[in-house]
Amino acid sequence: MHAKEIHLASRPTGEPVPDNFRTVTTELPPLEDGQILVRNIVMSVDPYMRGRMNDVKSYVPPFRLDTVLDGGAVGEVIETRNDAFSVGDAVSHGKGWRDIAIVDGKGARTVDLTQAQASSYLGALGMTGLTAYSGLTAVAQFKPGDTVFVSGAAGAVGSLVGQIARKLGAERVIGSAGSPAKVARLLELGFDAAFDYHDGSVKKQLAHAAPDGIDVYFDNVGGDHLEAAITSANKYGRFALCGAISQYNSTEPSSAPRNLALAIGKELTLKGFIVGSYGHLTEEFSEKMTQWIADGDVEWDETVVDGLENAPQAFIGLLRGENTGKMIVAI
Amino acid sequence: MHAKEIHLASRPTGEPVPDNFRTVTTELPPLEDGQILVRNIVMSVDPYMRGRMNDVKSYVPPFRLDTVLDGGAVGEVIETRNDAFSVGDAVSHGKGWRDIAIVDGKGARTVDLTQAQASSYLGALGMTGLTAYSGLTAVAQFKPGDTVFVSGAAGAVGSLVGQIARKLGAERVIGSAGSPAKVARLLELGFDAAFDYHDGSVKKQLAHAAPDGIDVYFDNVGGDHLEAAITSANKYGRFALCGAISQYNSTEPSSAPRNLALAIGKELTLKGFIVGSYGHLTEEFSEKMTQWIADGDVEWDETVVDGLENAPQAFIGLLRGENTGKMIVAI
Repeated sequence: MHAKEIHLASRPTGEPVPDNFRTVTTELPPLEDGQILVRNIVMSVDPYMRGRMNDVKSYVPPFRLDTVLDGGAVGEVIETRNDAFSVGDAVSHGKGWRDIAIVDGKGARTVDLTQAQASSYLGALGMTGLTAYSGLTAVAQFKPGDTVFVSGAAGAVGSLVGQIARKLGAERVIGSAGSPAKVARLLELGFDAAFDYHDGSVKKQLAHAAPDGIDVYFDNVGGDHLEAAITSANKYGRFALCGAISQYNSTEPSSAPRNLALAIGKELTLKGFIVGSYGHLTEEFSEKMTQWIADGDVEWDETVVDGLENAPQAFIGLLRGENTGKMIVAI
Repeated sequence: MHAKEIHLASRPTGEPVPDNFRTVTTELPPLEDGQILVRNIVMSVDPYMRGRMNDVKSYVPPFRLDTVLDGGAVGEVIETRNDAFSVGDAVSHGKGWRDIAIVDGKGARTVDLTQAQASSYLGALGMTGLTAYSGLTAVAQFKPGDTVFVSGAAGAVGSLVGQIARKLGAERVIGSAGSPAKVARLLELGFDAAFDYHDGSVKKQLAHAAPDGIDVYFDNVGGDHLEAAITSANKYGRFALCGAISQYNSTEPSSAPRNLALAIGKELTLKGFIVGSYGHLTEEFSEKMTQWIADGDVEWDETVVDGLENAPQAFIGLLRGENTGKMIVAI
């Protein structure tokens, strides 16, 4: 059996370019006990992958050069040496960036494609949704009546954070995004206020959108957004630090936030997190999210790019903000 | 009755100068019901007072121009219209920066000068000690086995943080200070390692002193110290943000920390605090600290400046780091 795979050909400096990637056809070895063979249907490209392309120690090991990349994917089992899976099952797993994958059964979870489409299990019902839910509830300790600010709010995680906050009783939900169309979409999704960060100082725009300050900040961006959120934070404000997409492509350290000393008097809590530490919330999250989706209370957008060979371009576009909602590659 | 008082004559720009202060003799009105008249013995000058000299909204209101300053003091009751206090009682209260004070009984606490000297109730047994204790335990969630880094460790709060961490079972306690004499003193006080931040990069010196990283950072300094602590932090590190003395005199915003995005993958918690929010720990703290002092396990240094009229110079010296331990003015 042959697989088409996307390899990391070289490490990006700053913004990734197509030459950093290479499409390779590989002959797969036979399955070992416990493994399954999966024909991938969809895969995910996510901002955190940019960090793994650098050769630095981080919370996940760096991608290796001249080796297939990996990431979330959903596919169909076409061969099995694991009793927990049958041919024809749909599974969610971590071996994306290829059309045919050998997956260890322990790393796969059966999903129901009659209940939701494959890409949902990468998005609202998958890691993306759990990131939004756990960051808002467990990390930022959201409580009803809070005013919530989300940066990168038109992104896959951000748009869910805002909608979950509304469902859980936020007083006011504010989002920032990178285009007028995205801002309009946030208002449709039920955000009380939204602004385009290109329209001027984030600090001023946030102060205008949150005249009574913010209690919770869900940070996907870092930099000037984080600084603005510190300025607008109310006493005992709680920040979930989820991402810093403004800095992922930078080759220089960022100079933010210059006002962190305000966290003392305001008694702010800033807490970084990665979704892997909140796996214990999966069941609670899945139950609630399935219900919210069934009730039509949570919507999400996807930007779908066709063809595995276009995955690098999808990833480059993601870092440029060319997506609205989850960026998906249909394989 | 006349009182000699130190007034704020003008707001400092950058480092305070003697002309920002004025010594004024005031005629005091008669006591009202509930008040006591106190002859102050000692008063405290503290870094947080610098913030109150700016005309900006903060967690405590700014000092008013042409008005007496205030702060911690201990004195003797010389007249009383409050049944809870008798003439001759020693009291700790908040009306420092003057020799004779009218104090509302609700703002005074009787202290025992036979058990400890007056200045102790401004330091180890007072707000300074409670700041160290609550910051380490409640804010930074210290646990036995943690490696702890304290910046400004020769200061009144910092030196107590290190000793309390030792008493509570720290694996390793590291302090930074601003002179070779202070570094030597920290080692005497039981710190496992200490360095002079003038000797080179804080980041490199901390990495050397903490080869296995740090779990808790007690921040009195901000700036490069905070950035270094983020770099050296272990997974799930916890930071108590208590002060940012490196920035109190600055007229420009600081550019630190440029590496805050590392807090995501390391899942750090940075929590600002002011001691006023931890008053509920006073009893627990006082019991433990009294015992530690009785056992000879906690020591502290004082730098005593004589004479109320020298209080401004004591304060200016404090911000320059001319003190070792608590800076006290004997009135």
